[in-house]
Amino acid sequence: MFAPANLSDDGFLGGRLRIAQPRHGYRAAADPVLLAAAVPARRGETVLELGCGAGVASLCLGARVDGLGLTGLELQPDYAALARSNAIANEIAFDVVEGDLGRMPAVLRGRSFDHVIANPPYFPRGGGTAADDRGRELALREETPLSVWLAAGVRRLRPGGRLTLIQAAERLPDLLAGLGPPMGSAVLLPIAPRIGRDAGRVILQATKGGRAAFRLATPLVLHEGARHLTDGDDYTAQIRAVLRDAAALEF
Amino acid sequence: MFAPANLSDDGFLGGRLRIAQPRHGYRAAADPVLLAAAVPARRGETVLELGCGAGVASLCLGARVDGLGLTGLELQPDYAALARSNAIANEIAFDVVEGDLGRMPAVLRGRSFDHVIANPPYFPRGGGTAADDRGRELALREETPLSVWLAAGVRRLRPGGRLTLIQAAERLPDLLAGLGPPMGSAVLLPIAPRIGRDAGRVILQATKGGRAAFRLATPLVLHEGARHLTDGDDYTAQIRAVLRDAAALEF
Repeated sequence: MFAPANLSDDGFLGGRLRIAQPRHGYRAAADPVLLAAAVPARRGETVLELGCGAGVASLCLGARVDGLGLTGLELQPDYAALARSNAIANEIAFDVVEGDLGRMPAVLRGRSFDHVIANPPYFPRGGGTAADDRGRELALREETPLSVWLAAGVRRLRPGGRLTLIQAAERLPDLLAGLGPPMGSAVLLPIAPRIGRDAGRVILQATKGGRAAFRLATPLVLHEGARHLTDGDDYTAQIRAVLRDAAALEF
Repeated sequence: MFAPANLSDDGFLGGRLRIAQPRHGYRAAADPVLLAAAVPARRGETVLELGCGAGVASLCLGARVDGLGLTGLELQPDYAALARSNAIANEIAFDVVEGDLGRMPAVLRGRSFDHVIANPPYFPRGGGTAADDRGRELALREETPLSVWLAAGVRRLRPGGRLTLIQAAERLPDLLAGLGPPMGSAVLLPIAPRIGRDAGRVILQATKGGRAAFRLATPLVLHEGARHLTDGDDYTAQIRAVLRDAAALEF
């Protein structure tokens, strides 16, 4: 368990969500909030988050949409415990299962979900520089290949269910390579820091058994202007609505 | 051979290229011109175009960059003959080989190129509605799977050589799935008809033996404004420079 002194208390969605997360481990920023905003979940539907960490994505989704059945799977016991206490503190029902998505726990193996969501590690094994912190390292660098995340997600979806992932744009070839049948009707949303820049992230959404053609959507732009000019943040109005007012992302 | 009465004479690059093409077969529009503009070829380099049709892409490239060694491979004899006569009419050296890229002709099997370019058919076998015209059908609908186009292109590149393709955006998953090692340093350029719209086409460029991370570039936008308002064309200044003044596309 994390010692309380090692945790910070951070506001998300304009303060309507308070999340305790380790000061020095993996710290959620905009990405899980964008992921949650992109999930087209409706009251009464079930959602499984693979690798839920401290629970930011699922809890943001629960804060936006009432009456969801939220389940998280997390490998690291201290993060799983943190996700549970964050859920309680925010009065959002969130069932967190401890386990490895590469060896799906029996309690999840028998279930299928309307939505599977994930924010998998961005850096492939062996690439980049290792993080000092073990928790951060596991959250950022894949021990489990991206293809295993995708396969595990697809298996846990009911027919017609939706997979929604956020990932580094440079992993797009791996992301699409792992997305054969039965997934279809895929939409890719590039996320660019500013207009005219390369995408830094992508959100991929696909439907189990979907038959529509792949769509490459117009990029979502995070910040106004060609570069940072003002003090404080310069989020676009659309992104501010997502990050502060829990607006949905449609694409 | 096409009867002269069945050919139209069309201007490209602001009229500096005159291309004869069948009135009712596959007719080149902006796509091969954009493809040619995206190829970073320099004087003295060699270029192989897979499926060159009437030769628009290679001849646009030859009109922009002097001193290239241009070679085309074309399956359909009447298009190969047309490409040769278009090259002669435009005084651009262009060696057109008749043959099937799935069974690379011996004359090309022994060679490697600095650049391979292609504008493969957009519709997979069995999808969509068949074109009335056999030539158009072959140009639009793949008889040869996209993966075979990619593999043939990669084999014909020298180490460090560049592959540049234009393709329908909906084929992006197939395009990236076919692009494993030895290709790397890939850049994807989405091409959107207007700002805020889904991409209709993509240009993919990759380097044989390249080691840089995949990049998802900001979209190239073809037309000004959110929709068509004026009489005549409403190309953006950048696109007008490419289509009329043979400017290069950098991304």
